[in-house]
Amino acid sequence: MERREKLYEGKAKILYATEDPTRVIQHFKDDATAFNAEKKGTIVDKGVMNNVISTLAFQYLESYGVATHFVEKLSEREMLVQRLNIVPLEMVARNVVAGSLAKRMGLEEGGELPSPVIEWYYKRDDLGDPLLNEDHVVIFGLSDISTLHALRETTLRVNELLKKFFLAQEILLVDFKVEYGRNHEGEILLADEITPDGCRFWDRKTREKMDKDRFRHDLGGVEEAYREVMTRIQGAPSAGAGGEGIFSP
Amino acid sequence: MERREKLYEGKAKILYATEDPTRVIQHFKDDATAFNAEKKGTIVDKGVMNNVISTLAFQYLESYGVATHFVEKLSEREMLVQRLNIVPLEMVARNVVAGSLAKRMGLEEGGELPSPVIEWYYKRDDLGDPLLNEDHVVIFGLSDISTLHALRETTLRVNELLKKFFLAQEILLVDFKVEYGRNHEGEILLADEITPDGCRFWDRKTREKMDKDRFRHDLGGVEEAYREVMTRIQGAPSAGAGGEGIFSP
Repeated sequence: MERREKLYEGKAKILYATEDPTRVIQHFKDDATAFNAEKKGTIVDKGVMNNVISTLAFQYLESYGVATHFVEKLSEREMLVQRLNIVPLEMVARNVVAGSLAKRMGLEEGGELPSPVIEWYYKRDDLGDPLLNEDHVVIFGLSDISTLHALRETTLRVNELLKKFFLAQEILLVDFKVEYGRNHEGEILLADEITPDGCRFWDRKTREKMDKDRFRHDLGGVEEAYREVMTRIQGAPSAGAGGEGIFSP
Repeated sequence: MERREKLYEGKAKILYATEDPTRVIQHFKDDATAFNAEKKGTIVDKGVMNNVISTLAFQYLESYGVATHFVEKLSEREMLVQRLNIVPLEMVARNVVAGSLAKRMGLEEGGELPSPVIEWYYKRDDLGDPLLNEDHVVIFGLSDISTLHALRETTLRVNELLKKFFLAQEILLVDFKVEYGRNHEGEILLADEITPDGCRFWDRKTREKMDKDRFRHDLGGVEEAYREVMTRIQGAPSAGAGGEGIFSP
């Protein structure tokens, strides 16, 4: 598949056209941003690791019947995906109180939720990706109600599957953000990526953070955390798995 | 009804106990706050005017079968209301884009909505009253789902009634915030107040603001705006009604 013109460059990925109008190349960068791009940096080899992690997660989800945009891994930093019209919503599933949910509800991080919380945010960097409710989505025409309900249900199912997938490697899936889009046939597919950039992962035993929060809050060991997630889900032996203080600088 | 101990003092109102454990006195103050109490001031006679406006609005709603906490107007600044356990949600109905909705969606103020937007916020001053979705309410136990749906439906009905009530006086009901609570019999009643502190009112013809936004944004003519709303809904003749620039300093 030949790489043609750049279609879009985001904070962590670039999309390139191909000779097939229904396929695009998703290229993973090492650039990292946080707090709506107020903090910027680089995580060495993040693009390579995120490509591996996303590939394995999409393949797992596909094996359980979840329709995703993933076609195949092309190279170290590139995967071939279906070309989509993205629904302008960031769908979030949460299993444990953390991040903006802790702030919103005035709670400490770490409390396990009795059932998953699903949220959706308006995908608008210029507005800081604000939380929306159902009325906002429907009345401002971002999606019809049945699509929104379908995205919610799919996100719940993706959450159940990913929880199991990561827990098998002693990783607690705290929360994650996903996006969806429609392909040329109008089919809605899970899009974007499944990586430590958009998921919160904690070591099941030590509850150490294994995700972009290490970069956000200058906790050190950022690359090591991404690599540890990659290594665990690749099923390769990992020196640190289950150990104590593996990311301590 | 004798006024006994102070039960609660908020930014704009005080609640006093009475000899009847099911009744409290709601006292309206002149104090005004905005931007989560970062801005503070006084609006002369606001308490007196808000007591009149709220009384008329509650009586109107009651006449259409909406159950409210209102019992009777007692004095210039006091009304007798049922004692409630307040649901910790601020229910908002919006007919026109303004305020935080304009900011959230990245839109100019003034666009009429094809149908009302209902929102609910967590009644927590210390958190800045954040927007919540259904999951937040239910999973954190702020209300059960059927109560939340009932509050939503009642707020839609209150909106339809209040829109007509104010439009008859050439006032456009842009949006408003209400609260609900349960009385000693478990009945859910509309609570709090219906005033220019918690409603956005615009003159129908000139679209001049007739509410707390004049205080928030230092537009001048704050007292005059509250008085104009009161005068119009009292049905008394008003020098400025329908005129141009009635609140210009």
